Amino acid sequence: MAVPVANPQPPFNITRASHVVLTARDLEASRAFYADVLGFVASEVADDALYLRGLEERNHHSVVLRRSKNPAVGALGFKLASEEELDKAARYFGERQIPHRFVQKPFQGRTLAATDPLGMPLEFYFAMDQLPRMLQKYGVYRGAKIQRIDHINCFTPDVQASHDFYNEIGFRTTEYTAAEGSGELWAVWMHRKGGVNDIAFTNGFGPRLHHIGVWVSSITDIIHICDVLATTGFLKSMERGPGRHGISNAFFLYLRDPDGHRIELFTSDYLTVDPDHEPIHWDLLDPTRQTLWGAPAPKSWFEEGSLFPEVAIREPLLKAKPIVAP
Amino acid sequence: MAVPVANPQPPFNITRASHVVLTARDLEASRAFYADVLGFVASEVADDALYLRGLEERNHHSVVLRRSKNPAVGALGFKLASEEELDKAARYFGERQIPHRFVQKPFQGRTLAATDPLGMPLEFYFAMDQLPRMLQKYGVYRGAKIQRIDHINCFTPDVQASHDFYNEIGFRTTEYTAAEGSGELWAVWMHRKGGVNDIAFTNGFGPRLHHIGVWVSSITDIIHICDVLATTGFLKSMERGPGRHGISNAFFLYLRDPDGHRIELFTSDYLTVDPDHEPIHWDLLDPTRQTLWGAPAPKSWFEEGSLFPEVAIREPLLKAKPIVAP
Amino acid sequence: MAVPVANPQPPFNITRASHVVLTARDLEASRAFYADVLGFVASEVADDALYLRGLEERNHHSVVLRRSKNPAVGALGFKLASEEELDKAARYFGERQIPHRFVQKPFQGRTLAATDPLGMPLEFYFAMDQLPRMLQKYGVYRGAKIQRIDHINCFTPDVQASHDFYNEIGFRTTEYTAAEGSGELWAVWMHRKGGVNDIAFTNGFGPRLHHIGVWVSSITDIIHICDVLATTGFLKSMERGPGRHGISNAFFLYLRDPDGHRIELFTSDYLTVDPDHEPIHWDLLDPTRQTLWGAPAPKSWFEEGSLFPEVAIREPLLKAKPIVAP
Amino acid sequence: MAVPVANPQPPFNITRASHVVLTARDLEASRAFYADVLGFVASEVADDALYLRGLEERNHHSVVLRRSKNPAVGALGFKLASEEELDKAARYFGERQIPHRFVQKPFQGRTLAATDPLGMPLEFYFAMDQLPRMLQKYGVYRGAKIQRIDHINCFTPDVQASHDFYNEIGFRTTEYTAAEGSGELWAVWMHRKGGVNDIAFTNGFGPRLHHIGVWVSSITDIIHICDVLATTGFLKSMERGPGRHGISNAFFLYLRDPDGHRIELFTSDYLTVDPDHEPIHWDLLDPTRQTLWGAPAPKSWFEEGSLFPEVAIREPLLKAKPIVAP
Repeated sequence: MAVPVANPQPPFNITRASHVVLTARDLEASRAFYADVLGFVASEVADDALYLRGLEERNHHSVVLRRSKNPAVGALGFKLASEEELDKAARYFGERQIPHRFVQKPFQGRTLAATDPLGMPLEFYFAMDQLPRMLQKYGVYRGAKIQRIDHINCFTPDVQASHDFYNEIGFRTTEYTAAEGSGELWAVWMHRKGGVNDIAFTNGFGPRLHHIGVWVSSITDIIHICDVLATTGFLKSMERGPGRHGISNAFFLYLRDPDGHRIELFTSDYLTVDPDHEPIHWDLLDPTRQTLWGAPAPKSWFEEGSLFPEVAIREPLLKAKPIVAP
Repeated sequence: MAVPVANPQPPFNITRASHVVLTARDLEASRAFYADVLGFVASEVADDALYLRGLEERNHHSVVLRRSKNPAVGALGFKLASEEELDKAARYFGERQIPHRFVQKPFQGRTLAATDPLGMPLEFYFAMDQLPRMLQKYGVYRGAKIQRIDHINCFTPDVQASHDFYNEIGFRTTEYTAAEGSGELWAVWMHRKGGVNDIAFTNGFGPRLHHIGVWVSSITDIIHICDVLATTGFLKSMERGPGRHGISNAFFLYLRDPDGHRIELFTSDYLTVDPDHEPIHWDLLDPTRQTLWGAPAPKSWFEEGSLFPEVAIREPLLKAKPIVAP
Repeated sequence: MAVPVANPQPPFNITRASHVVLTARDLEASRAFYADVLGFVASEVADDALYLRGLEERNHHSVVLRRSKNPAVGALGFKLASEEELDKAARYFGERQIPHRFVQKPFQGRTLAATDPLGMPLEFYFAMDQLPRMLQKYGVYRGAKIQRIDHINCFTPDVQASHDFYNEIGFRTTEYTAAEGSGELWAVWMHRKGGVNDIAFTNGFGPRLHHIGVWVSSITDIIHICDVLATTGFLKSMERGPGRHGISNAFFLYLRDPDGHRIELFTSDYLTVDPDHEPIHWDLLDPTRQTLWGAPAPKSWFEEGSLFPEVAIREPLLKAKPIVAP
Repeated sequence: MAVPVANPQPPFNITRASHVVLTARDLEASRAFYADVLGFVASEVADDALYLRGLEERNHHSVVLRRSKNPAVGALGFKLASEEELDKAARYFGERQIPHRFVQKPFQGRTLAATDPLGMPLEFYFAMDQLPRMLQKYGVYRGAKIQRIDHINCFTPDVQASHDFYNEIGFRTTEYTAAEGSGELWAVWMHRKGGVNDIAFTNGFGPRLHHIGVWVSSITDIIHICDVLATTGFLKSMERGPGRHGISNAFFLYLRDPDGHRIELFTSDYLTVDPDHEPIHWDLLDPTRQTLWGAPAPKSWFEEGSLFPEVAIREPLLKAKPIVAP
């Protein structure tokens, strides 16, 4: 079976997707886009790095942008439940002979860097500097009023292999897409925190980052940011949407930041904490899967993504194709 | 100049676009679509005709569907300011030697039928049966919570000629699209009631009805009806949107009814009652004109429309083309 | 009968309520409140006056604040349909022996100042400087995203007399409140532009300005400004609401500006352009009249208002009392 | 210290607040209120019981109403993470000598009934019949579009004692109110599922149920149900709100069902899954605590609640008083 039962006793306890480290060519352009336009809060604006958080977040950062000539993805970050879980994680990776080491990261406590079986750079930590939450500082709300990071979505050349690793370390599948006929896994959404996903995988040249999903609190916030983007010089940053996903039921808007990294504004999925929550199956060619309203995604959305430096990209094993806008 | 000054002393006083008479093949299918799904109120469900009104409307009907094997448009209805204005209208059409006559229409007082210079069948009246408004009967709200008819939009082979006639009888231009270079009128929006339009014209094979615009009170009502349509068997009725028009600033969704007649759900335009309100000029190839967010309309939206029976369609004089989705 | 038929041939043609001139003690405090917090656009910030307009307004101003030690109301402004209508207005006031004279007002063309029978200072004009509309400059939207002025609401000691004068000059009644038993007019809403009101009167010590109503485009904008006001030091400026009026069906929030002038944020009333639009009768003691949801207004809302300088206040003729919050 | 550190190793694993069993005098009146008006889905309509669930819920029921002449609360239900956790729970209650026994409940698997130290009847289970989720059956959405149960809120005569028990069995405090001066706990919000609360306690005569909180997906759904309730004969069921809580940041509306049980419609709190999430302290007399916008709750809201049959009510230990509307 493509989607096995969730692992009730994972080797270490991951709380949630916590942050993403990206590189960017012009941090002032990044700051303008993420903070002034989208409405992230800037926790730290330094010469070589920009640290952002959402309005409800107390963790110092959920998006980090480091200056670089070649935009790419530095790391995908996950918060663990305690310091002891970090040691359990190190032990797990050691036993599996997966590359890992403790590293220093600004504003974070002990941080374990590791690589997943497909080559994606991960970082795990428990402690991060805490900053005042801005949730009830309504006077500083701007743009789409970004609340918090929600999830990380990646291209993988082998959805089944990616699924199997994250399933083993405790992520639970909520929805998945299977190729017609073979039933092979074409995409999968997996969570720790009780929403539809903390991490998701789509079949494609990979590993690459497809997008970061950030939570906003209402559909009207997403409609408003469309109007703002379209009339403040960011028309070209609007890649797809707004629309309603069949998968996850989320209302979405996909944007490309000044370096081409993709950001999804995301709201209105559902609670998935029940351990007996049965994963939902979608056929790859169901037109309401991508967008409940039937509009297919553009080609760029299926083909473009952000690279992990020094990680070779492989062709996807699965050749089945989704419905793409002409 | 393409857009002359509005006529401050029109020959008779039109209050607003009031109703449209369509023909339909299956009135029960029409009733299900308009009343059960979209949320119109059914004022009268007869064997050969269906009369609909919006939640705030006291006039007996704003959309009439008559049974017929060949779906088409029976008449475009306008409410005048008084019975005397009807006589003035008859006199005006007589002087201009435009075909016209007084006719009997159910639920309406004296009604003057006439034909505009391009062949569109019009009907003018002052008195219509009044029914209770349902605006504060929130328990009967359904679907998109249709509030009232807003406007009528037509294809015309000669936008300048259509404009000139409606300008003469008192419609005032709020926005218009001109072809690049020649500056010729490609589309025009004209009003009586103080919004962006009561009637609008687009260059194309015509005369044909492009759509009826109906007012809804919020963007969230439009998003909700997308979800309802997509999951109750009406996915194919969703032709374009939701989106924000550059022109009119309205938030829109275009639907096709069971007979292919096009309905626009429409909200958030602006007040235009000031007599010195300067019309807004748009270039035909401005990508934000159609949709502020840059997404072009599908081909069907530019090419398909509802016929007026026994009215010959002519090729448009103007050959300039808009941006069409691939 | 309390509410006579509207006057179809008024002596001059008023387009709409256009602006209000207030006096304020600290113009910087006023600017912060109206522009930074509420989201008005500042058209002119001068040493002794502040001119504000809404996002969709092209007229130079709809709210004017002049510096003064004693906050009061300078004038209630109405836009006429043309320069000739100004001369007709002067003739009308002359014939009625009502005080009037042409005055110079910054940013306005010829302006006729007059006084209504109860002593309220009015000003009529046709031409005003035009500024770019900001409706599609979504990047400058702030706070409640004020769109435009909607109406002016006043206390009067004699609702019937106020009604009769404004009815004569062309305002049409859409809704009214009558005292139980006697049926005497207790409040009345009257319009020119096709909404529920351009001017309204409530029984009370007067004449005084009760509030200026400004249009916002959605309920969610009103909810958001509540959160902003409550968390940026303006908690005390929130006097009543948010809520839904039974009368007018509008969604409302009442605020007090830094000088105590009352502002209503207002949305979702309905179209009233039909000449045969029957006024709606409300009983004074109907609990859903004030607020559809049943919550009575606070005492301050019924008792406090802004003075017209040098105009004596009279006790109301009618002694009937509304439902007031304990 | 009033709020100790959360228990990282609770004796058994509770997933979330799952359901409430109430008694009601007229199940058809209950069905009309909960299903037709509010928008719950009726899973089972039997002669002596009514089972309801929200649109996204697959569990058979989250609200159960049993016929009885004396409206009261039958049980507060919690879902555990597995069948083994049920046995651990039985062991825990046995060791603590807390009354408990396995019982049969319709549509549920093995169910453990127990009583908390203050006398509240609890039931724990893992398995419940699963029904199709209606989340994407938008055609059946009605009223406030109830999504799911969110939390249970109770009066207790000893907030500290209630807190201590639920803290021991794994609930984590997110926010709390302390009396000025003494710092004694006056109210506390505690969760398992990653929102602000699964269970909350307020100082008062108790134990009694204060309310069930049910999740809706947007503020506009709450505004709409106010309009529906006010105009369909349910005006008196509206007890408090709509408004924004300072505590939890939730947008709320409090209703009383036909038997007086209190229901809170609730949306827009925040994610609390981080184990190092610091509880937020509120002063009892902070006016923005109850309602961010400053409006105090009515007396009934502080004084009335639903009884647990055969459980004696005690006077609260703490005498400090909140701000109550006059």
